[in-house]
Amino acid sequence: MTTKIDVNATARLLLEKDNILIICHKNPDGDTLGSAAALCHVLTAMGKKCYVACHNTIPSKYEYLNIPVYDGQAEIEFVVSVDVAGINLFGDSLADYTHKVDLCIDHHGSNGEYANYLCLKADYPAAAQLMYEVIVAMNAEITPHIADCLYTGMLTDTGCFKYSSTTPLTHIIGAKLMELGANHTMLVEKFFMEKSRKAVQLEKYMLNNLEYYYDDRCALLVLTRETILEIQPDPTDLDGLSSMPRDFEGIDVSVLIRPLREEGSYKLSIRTGENVNACAIAAALGGGGHLRAAGCEVVGSIETVKKAILKEVENALCQ
Amino acid sequence: MTTKIDVNATARLLLEKDNILIICHKNPDGDTLGSAAALCHVLTAMGKKCYVACHNTIPSKYEYLNIPVYDGQAEIEFVVSVDVAGINLFGDSLADYTHKVDLCIDHHGSNGEYANYLCLKADYPAAAQLMYEVIVAMNAEITPHIADCLYTGMLTDTGCFKYSSTTPLTHIIGAKLMELGANHTMLVEKFFMEKSRKAVQLEKYMLNNLEYYYDDRCALLVLTRETILEIQPDPTDLDGLSSMPRDFEGIDVSVLIRPLREEGSYKLSIRTGENVNACAIAAALGGGGHLRAAGCEVVGSIETVKKAILKEVENALCQ
Repeated sequence: MTTKIDVNATARLLLEKDNILIICHKNPDGDTLGSAAALCHVLTAMGKKCYVACHNTIPSKYEYLNIPVYDGQAEIEFVVSVDVAGINLFGDSLADYTHKVDLCIDHHGSNGEYANYLCLKADYPAAAQLMYEVIVAMNAEITPHIADCLYTGMLTDTGCFKYSSTTPLTHIIGAKLMELGANHTMLVEKFFMEKSRKAVQLEKYMLNNLEYYYDDRCALLVLTRETILEIQPDPTDLDGLSSMPRDFEGIDVSVLIRPLREEGSYKLSIRTGENVNACAIAAALGGGGHLRAAGCEVVGSIETVKKAILKEVENALCQ
Repeated sequence: MTTKIDVNATARLLLEKDNILIICHKNPDGDTLGSAAALCHVLTAMGKKCYVACHNTIPSKYEYLNIPVYDGQAEIEFVVSVDVAGINLFGDSLADYTHKVDLCIDHHGSNGEYANYLCLKADYPAAAQLMYEVIVAMNAEITPHIADCLYTGMLTDTGCFKYSSTTPLTHIIGAKLMELGANHTMLVEKFFMEKSRKAVQLEKYMLNNLEYYYDDRCALLVLTRETILEIQPDPTDLDGLSSMPRDFEGIDVSVLIRPLREEGSYKLSIRTGENVNACAIAAALGGGGHLRAAGCEVVGSIETVKKAILKEVENALCQ
């Protein structure tokens, strides 16, 4: 049974507790890490013992958050999950905690209500926006570093105030965090400005090799093994690459085909515009995912793989 | 002699006048057009006669601003320039007005002080941020449409709240404009999500033709007359193009050279990273602008123009 509580009750609950473990979702992003870091620093400054756990190693990009990672040894009395919609997002190494969460602070409408207490604002674009309110309700000091942590979550989950989930309150809390010392310029450059040389090389390859089908409504890119060996892209660069052509004028479906380690096996990433179901396309080839972003793995020669995916894309576009 | 006045004096001055012409800078962007449109709609709603003039035809992308363009016939008693740093930015067709400007509302530190009265906030990221304050000081109603006009200027001149010129006040005014009805989602999609076919073609051309200098710290692109004729880009696409390479890893200065209508005459757009002064580079060639974004026009062959700008870039990088 999950009890839903508001920001003030959440603050009171946190103020009462000690020896706290904060859990982030697997494949962590700026929002789960920034929100967890902010809460951890606040609780630590109050003299409490507090740690953060995540199934994955924290990417080096987030090193500046200065997260005290849980060593698995210290005694834990209270478990808080942050920005974790469901227990499937804990990851294997934290599976033991899925039914031991005392408090969940989240902004996903799809929250699985797995915690004893749930503080949820489904209309907030970022968990960090909610965490700001919780910290204010705790009457805790927001240092410039804590402001950086929270601003990280706000920035990354709104695409730098771009997504339609951005509201006046998002701007107002953005302003407060800047006034409290969040380093807007450093954080925006880190997450939205700098394009690595590899990413630039990949984009050039993409623009020169993109194939168009079905009255230019489908853009398809085959990333060859040779190109991958030449550029040696980071996984995050490839994620960005697959969604780029979707924003091109007139494109309804974008497909990225890249070779898997085993010869004759390919990973397909499918991204779609508003009116096409990416998940249905992927599912027809044994994969799955979300409405606008899905994927599958297909075995065969590159010609048969292309033929198979284009047939499914055609079906989807005809509907 | 230019008299500097504050927001309240500016509001009083505007409230006194009628038969007003608002002048935008040539090659207009979202800030000059959005700010001018907002002021024009406010003054018109007060029963005044008010028009907007721009050397160039207003790009179709800005049609929704619904700007009443001056027909050149109606009697004018008061001339206001908006976001126009110097008289060189009026364009030939408005050259007659360069010494007849009663009031200039601007946010460029390099403002040439050509108007009788100048309301300048050089630390504001957009003229629209200042125009919002002027309109509030006039006690005028900000309708959802006027909020859209002002939000357009804020969005486009901050790169959607990305640039380092963004301050807490920018977020606060952004929040106010959203509360007043600015359509965040529509405007962000228009300016920051959808990439037109022409923009995609331009990006491909850019990535295939970018020249690197000074240990790859400077990226320079020459847009040929042939390419422009082939792609026929919108002016707004060109604005985006000039700042793109600045965000590439390692690039401190990005230069876009494009031919002007007159043979042997070029427009240079200079964009710089944190440690290089774009305005100083542009000023050395007779131009001006901001610390990170500036421009100039140079006459000569493409070889001499490249040589001239690269020399100034080298000087700037050595400092």
